Amino acid sequence: MKLKSKVTAPFKRKSHATIPGSIIYTGNNTVEKVSVHHLKYDEFKAEDRVFDSNEKGTLLPSDEDIVDWYDVRGMQDTNLIEAIGKTYGIHPLILESIVDVNQRPRFDENEKGIFITIRALHFDKEKQEISKEHVAIYLIKGLVISFQETSSDLFESVRDRILSSKGRVRQRGSDYLVYALLDAIIDNYYITLDSFESVIEQVEDDVMEDHHEDIKGDIHNLKKELIVVRKSIAPLREALSRFSKTENTIVYESTFDYLRSLYENTVQIMDSVESYRDMLNSLQDLFMTEVSYKMNKVMQVLTIVSTIFIPLTFVAGIYGMNFDHIPELHFKNGYFIAWGFMIVVALLLVYYFKRRKWL
Amino acid sequence: MKLKSKVTAPFKRKSHATIPGSIIYTGNNTVEKVSVHHLKYDEFKAEDRVFDSNEKGTLLPSDEDIVDWYDVRGMQDTNLIEAIGKTYGIHPLILESIVDVNQRPRFDENEKGIFITIRALHFDKEKQEISKEHVAIYLIKGLVISFQETSSDLFESVRDRILSSKGRVRQRGSDYLVYALLDAIIDNYYITLDSFESVIEQVEDDVMEDHHEDIKGDIHNLKKELIVVRKSIAPLREALSRFSKTENTIVYESTFDYLRSLYENTVQIMDSVESYRDMLNSLQDLFMTEVSYKMNKVMQVLTIVSTIFIPLTFVAGIYGMNFDHIPELHFKNGYFIAWGFMIVVALLLVYYFKRRKWL
Amino acid sequence: MKLKSKVTAPFKRKSHATIPGSIIYTGNNTVEKVSVHHLKYDEFKAEDRVFDSNEKGTLLPSDEDIVDWYDVRGMQDTNLIEAIGKTYGIHPLILESIVDVNQRPRFDENEKGIFITIRALHFDKEKQEISKEHVAIYLIKGLVISFQETSSDLFESVRDRILSSKGRVRQRGSDYLVYALLDAIIDNYYITLDSFESVIEQVEDDVMEDHHEDIKGDIHNLKKELIVVRKSIAPLREALSRFSKTENTIVYESTFDYLRSLYENTVQIMDSVESYRDMLNSLQDLFMTEVSYKMNKVMQVLTIVSTIFIPLTFVAGIYGMNFDHIPELHFKNGYFIAWGFMIVVALLLVYYFKRRKWL
Amino acid sequence: MKLKSKVTAPFKRKSHATIPGSIIYTGNNTVEKVSVHHLKYDEFKAEDRVFDSNEKGTLLPSDEDIVDWYDVRGMQDTNLIEAIGKTYGIHPLILESIVDVNQRPRFDENEKGIFITIRALHFDKEKQEISKEHVAIYLIKGLVISFQETSSDLFESVRDRILSSKGRVRQRGSDYLVYALLDAIIDNYYITLDSFESVIEQVEDDVMEDHHEDIKGDIHNLKKELIVVRKSIAPLREALSRFSKTENTIVYESTFDYLRSLYENTVQIMDSVESYRDMLNSLQDLFMTEVSYKMNKVMQVLTIVSTIFIPLTFVAGIYGMNFDHIPELHFKNGYFIAWGFMIVVALLLVYYFKRRKWL
Amino acid sequence: MKLKSKVTAPFKRKSHATIPGSIIYTGNNTVEKVSVHHLKYDEFKAEDRVFDSNEKGTLLPSDEDIVDWYDVRGMQDTNLIEAIGKTYGIHPLILESIVDVNQRPRFDENEKGIFITIRALHFDKEKQEISKEHVAIYLIKGLVISFQETSSDLFESVRDRILSSKGRVRQRGSDYLVYALLDAIIDNYYITLDSFESVIEQVEDDVMEDHHEDIKGDIHNLKKELIVVRKSIAPLREALSRFSKTENTIVYESTFDYLRSLYENTVQIMDSVESYRDMLNSLQDLFMTEVSYKMNKVMQVLTIVSTIFIPLTFVAGIYGMNFDHIPELHFKNGYFIAWGFMIVVALLLVYYFKRRKWL
Repeated sequence: MKLKSKVTAPFKRKSHATIPGSIIYTGNNTVEKVSVHHLKYDEFKAEDRVFDSNEKGTLLPSDEDIVDWYDVRGMQDTNLIEAIGKTYGIHPLILESIVDVNQRPRFDENEKGIFITIRALHFDKEKQEISKEHVAIYLIKGLVISFQETSSDLFESVRDRILSSKGRVRQRGSDYLVYALLDAIIDNYYITLDSFESVIEQVEDDVMEDHHEDIKGDIHNLKKELIVVRKSIAPLREALSRFSKTENTIVYESTFDYLRSLYENTVQIMDSVESYRDMLNSLQDLFMTEVSYKMNKVMQVLTIVSTIFIPLTFVAGIYGMNFDHIPELHFKNGYFIAWGFMIVVALLLVYYFKRRKWL
Repeated sequence: MKLKSKVTAPFKRKSHATIPGSIIYTGNNTVEKVSVHHLKYDEFKAEDRVFDSNEKGTLLPSDEDIVDWYDVRGMQDTNLIEAIGKTYGIHPLILESIVDVNQRPRFDENEKGIFITIRALHFDKEKQEISKEHVAIYLIKGLVISFQETSSDLFESVRDRILSSKGRVRQRGSDYLVYALLDAIIDNYYITLDSFESVIEQVEDDVMEDHHEDIKGDIHNLKKELIVVRKSIAPLREALSRFSKTENTIVYESTFDYLRSLYENTVQIMDSVESYRDMLNSLQDLFMTEVSYKMNKVMQVLTIVSTIFIPLTFVAGIYGMNFDHIPELHFKNGYFIAWGFMIVVALLLVYYFKRRKWL
Repeated sequence: MKLKSKVTAPFKRKSHATIPGSIIYTGNNTVEKVSVHHLKYDEFKAEDRVFDSNEKGTLLPSDEDIVDWYDVRGMQDTNLIEAIGKTYGIHPLILESIVDVNQRPRFDENEKGIFITIRALHFDKEKQEISKEHVAIYLIKGLVISFQETSSDLFESVRDRILSSKGRVRQRGSDYLVYALLDAIIDNYYITLDSFESVIEQVEDDVMEDHHEDIKGDIHNLKKELIVVRKSIAPLREALSRFSKTENTIVYESTFDYLRSLYENTVQIMDSVESYRDMLNSLQDLFMTEVSYKMNKVMQVLTIVSTIFIPLTFVAGIYGMNFDHIPELHFKNGYFIAWGFMIVVALLLVYYFKRRKWL
Repeated sequence: MKLKSKVTAPFKRKSHATIPGSIIYTGNNTVEKVSVHHLKYDEFKAEDRVFDSNEKGTLLPSDEDIVDWYDVRGMQDTNLIEAIGKTYGIHPLILESIVDVNQRPRFDENEKGIFITIRALHFDKEKQEISKEHVAIYLIKGLVISFQETSSDLFESVRDRILSSKGRVRQRGSDYLVYALLDAIIDNYYITLDSFESVIEQVEDDVMEDHHEDIKGDIHNLKKELIVVRKSIAPLREALSRFSKTENTIVYESTFDYLRSLYENTVQIMDSVESYRDMLNSLQDLFMTEVSYKMNKVMQVLTIVSTIFIPLTFVAGIYGMNFDHIPELHFKNGYFIAWGFMIVVALLLVYYFKRRKWL
Repeated sequence: MKLKSKVTAPFKRKSHATIPGSIIYTGNNTVEKVSVHHLKYDEFKAEDRVFDSNEKGTLLPSDEDIVDWYDVRGMQDTNLIEAIGKTYGIHPLILESIVDVNQRPRFDENEKGIFITIRALHFDKEKQEISKEHVAIYLIKGLVISFQETSSDLFESVRDRILSSKGRVRQRGSDYLVYALLDAIIDNYYITLDSFESVIEQVEDDVMEDHHEDIKGDIHNLKKELIVVRKSIAPLREALSRFSKTENTIVYESTFDYLRSLYENTVQIMDSVESYRDMLNSLQDLFMTEVSYKMNKVMQVLTIVSTIFIPLTFVAGIYGMNFDHIPELHFKNGYFIAWGFMIVVALLLVYYFKRRKWL
């Protein structure tokens, strides 16, 4: 298996050599058209519609008792984001975070609302790559605004459950919806890490059986990908720890159990990331040992062959000399005696190698 | 000794791409028939019976002063678990944990009850494998419900002690029973780690004496198994620390000493796991050094033999040349002089090697 | 790519074998003439002028409602600094810190003012070097005094924004100006680390494709540079954490969000530094493996060639002997039989190597 | 120097598959006869006697103002220990700890008494082994009961000081006696580590001068012994920290300075253990480098000799060919020209090696 | 550069198998005659004198408003120290610390006085050794007693400043004097570490250019010295942290800024020690890679020469055989054809090596 590591660089912050708090999308996933998916529901009914980001001013909560979820797909429309910021009075630095794909996962809150950024991870089995997607979620009472980089939907399962009225989500408020969205992303981590683990196991088999030459690069790439994954998850754990302890009244008492379980999931995921790290280090050691061990075998073969034949060749060389007077040459069975002598030497050497366990 | 590592993957969470809180058994140990073992006892009498998981509704506490212990063997009957959840008002996420074999050991409590999951470890001496079994225990006043994955009983020793009225367990309440159950599992850790240690010692001997080729793989596998064991014990330590500090009134004052001692046992076990890790790292280093050292020896033999015979062969080659006029060839004792010269060269080289301590 | 590491030594404190609190510039960047750039502004107007450090006594706040920013370029004029210290009652040890370029980044405050030192990092793409510049900032109500080592301006972008009235800076007080100055420096860290990362990637490619001989030195130098960078950023993180929690009334409530975001930036930068460290270690391992692996290949070639030809040469040697009676020599097709024998031996060896996957 | 590591396994807890709190001696040092040494003293007089463990019921405090020290030598008499437990109302789990030699050092206290376990270390210079002895001490007002595994006395120096009335011990209470006993054991740690250090230095000299083949095993064994030592001292540090902060009134104010100094000693000992660990790791690296370096030298010799003589042998081979027409063979001084050519080639190669610094 | 490591052993505590609190000098620097240097000063005058340690009872504070500094040089006169202890009521364990050169740096205080021990480090450029000197300082209101191991004065610069009335020291109390003494010692650390760093750089150059054989030992020795330095500085940092937070009224408010800056210096020094450690590890890796890399080069030369000449020698061997009938031997230009063939083979091999970049 040949791995190609195209993990996006761990960070490439915009060089906003300009003004702090300016809203500039720093990713590469420009969608053709930024669209907003609006889904409003309560326990009894749910309805969804899609509209253009041009129809501004529409991202308003519809009603007190209804949950409104605006799902913005595509981040390059900074006007829209600025408009939202103005509508809800969001701090400029938070607006900056929404579109900064290199932002670490973070949790911010004030009396009005709660803001959380997270990275969705996706393992592409074809290309053997982990790709990241920046996601931002803003929560106020009765309203959730989510921001995704691309038009492919990370939250499809949640949307389906709401529309088909499966599970608890319809009976609960906007805070539970945020939980459901985060849970959908974190669920994906498990799948991603499962794939990652199967790749490690594959490389492990390769090391053991030595199929190809790229193992050393593979291990290095896996290590690099893991470094990137780790940088996404470690701050998330911290952010969720703070989320699950928030004293904000937007979050109902009954949701905390769910948030805590989400937090425990990230702890478990970090555990796994750490153990993959240990495994890769152990695998690296194993490969090094494997290489040394194989070299040892190669050297033994060389040593055995050389050590047996070099002295014999010397003997042959001796009797190939052209001195006028070499008595042995004229012995009747000189040639056969020489052969006998050489065979005895060879056997002795073979015995010696056997005893040293080189043969 | 040839090790095979079949430690189950560190985690494979169900991809509940569906609904959080859904109860799905994630393990592979489906038993033929889920059975419930009911044991009720007080200081004076103890009685046990077994019944099918179909006889639902029966997992109720019998009496205030009597301890009821329902031991459910087999986890695939999610109806039963849901029924229990309804009876005792257990949170859906806890029900999910009961049947999720990849759940880290955890401790949860509310005013009603205490819930703890733990992993039983078993070292199969035949197959040289560590196997894990997921165990969940739910405690309320006067009642303990335990869940095991298979029908083989981890708690046999506790059951025997209760029935034969040995030890303190009959005089104490349901909280002490939970302690006894946990103690039975943790006791097994000692046995498991003892076996593990003896395997390390075996591999250590193999490294020293070099019996076979699989040592490098063995060390790697032991490291991997240790990573898995560590992931089971580290969260358990944390869970027991919280258990031993609970302010829940279900747990009597007199039981805390026992819980603390249980906690200290896990601390000690973690110490040992850490020291095994250090030992395996040191063993890895030793093996690498061993391999290098052996290669050194191989190279020395090659170098000595080559260095002695290559020049001599050259001399023999010289006098095998067919030039018309090579004066030495016609010396009276040319052949013997050549021999003498070669012997002197060889002896000088041997002396040189002796001085460098290569011989 | 050939790297030259000229990172200034991690510390070279003046050996003030003299008196603690004495003000001695410890750097090497003596500017020709120390100049002071004075910029005063409020929301409505901004005006700047430059004057000599000889015009002492002039670094006074102009007015309550106006922000005065004195930017001192060049640090060797210790008289000026002493004069400032006297004017504002700054502690001698803080004055010592202003001109001590080896001072770790630190934050000090008393009821009068706030003092912060920081290191500007600059990556010179031409010379492949990270250079450091010591910067000190002193803040009281309505007045900021900044100290730079050289006359090249680190704060040009901030100055431009003030003069052209872009961004928030004109509407805010002196505390926001300090934020803007720190932000300008920390922004540069991102650029520096981006360049650093691209150098790592370059070296990584070199390792994979092996273009030149200096990779091992390059990795070592990168590690060394990273150690130096780390020593600049780790204490800065701590200093900013304390700044963002100051209870000093000089800092307005509305500025804290900005300071916290600055603090989070340093956390993110430290994350990246740590991951570069991991990457370099992994790269070092990769290079070691690469070297071993290549040696393995070299040895295989040697072993194959030697193992095939040494026995054949021995055979040729045999029939080059001059014994009177060697029957084979007189066989009719002896020569061709010998060839045949040798070819068979060679083919067998080739087959053996094929099977061991050495060919 | 040849090291044998017979450090007892880091832990081998009894598999008390039976009942928690059961008192079973888990060590191997069964003494012939368990004896109790009773020493009672106050400032004015001291008297000692020895009696059998059969004379039970005698381990009672004699008088309020007198310190009674019962020193039990030998641990296999569990009846005695149970009797003591009954007399003083000691918790069953503490009784279990007294005879469990694999117990980590621990500190327990209740309102009645203080209990501490510790491991005495002894370095046997003859056998180059560190042996451990489990010691337990129980303290109540006016009474100390100590438990040793063997009949050889670890506390001889303390006993002598009491009987000969040297030092402070006679003027102080039972709490100071416990300090003196712990101090005697910790003093021994210094001696043990001193011996350990001198062994490290010996191995270091061996690495530098390469006297024998077992260095790699020696380093590994030292590391293993250190792991064991560390597991004895790390929990002791924690136990002493808690002891020196106890609020128990059994311990007089004036004794705390002594306990704190004891605690600081263990901190210092841990420092040393950590630095030995670093030293051994560095030594391991040094040895690996040494082996590689030596191999390098070996390879250089082989390469030089081969590279010089292989081409020369080829030349000799050329003129040993039997072609009908080889013009050089008939040159007048062909033989000498050939020699000259070969010497020139050899000199050029020697020059080349000199320039590469291989010679 | 050849390093000799004679760092005194990290600890060699007296085996006070005797009585805790006994005052025994544990160092080797016995001075000829213990002398006491008395310096008394206030803002207006300063006077010093020297007297013998025999003139006991004289170490008394002269006057309330005057600072008395007794500087005891030489530690073997335990009578003197006991006398001082009696005069000022110092705890026996502190007296023990004064003369115990293996004591970790520590800070102790009670309501009467403050006691601090510290290690002076000195780097001997001639012998390339770091030597340690144990220093103890005792402070009460108006009086400082310092203890040095040798008669060479570590505090000369402070003494000079007092006598010549330079700096702040004359205007301040005994607490500032203690600061000045500690500052003098810590200043020396910077010089020591500077020298240490230049040695590291020297070794680094050696590794790059490979001048001599002892690099591996040098790196090991530097690591060992650093371990020792670290053990001196880490506890000092802790001690100064406690000193700078003392609530003791002996220390004036105005001195705390100085103590804090001292504490920050030790933090910075520890940073440097840690980074030297990283550098040495990186250097070790570099050296290992260097050795491997060089071996690779050696092997390549051997492989190239062998691989080219061994087949050619075989060809020459073929035509040196004495078969009756070897047709090629009788070809007209057989000899030249053979040469041509061999040259072609050689060129092909050279081309092959060129393509593999071995040439």
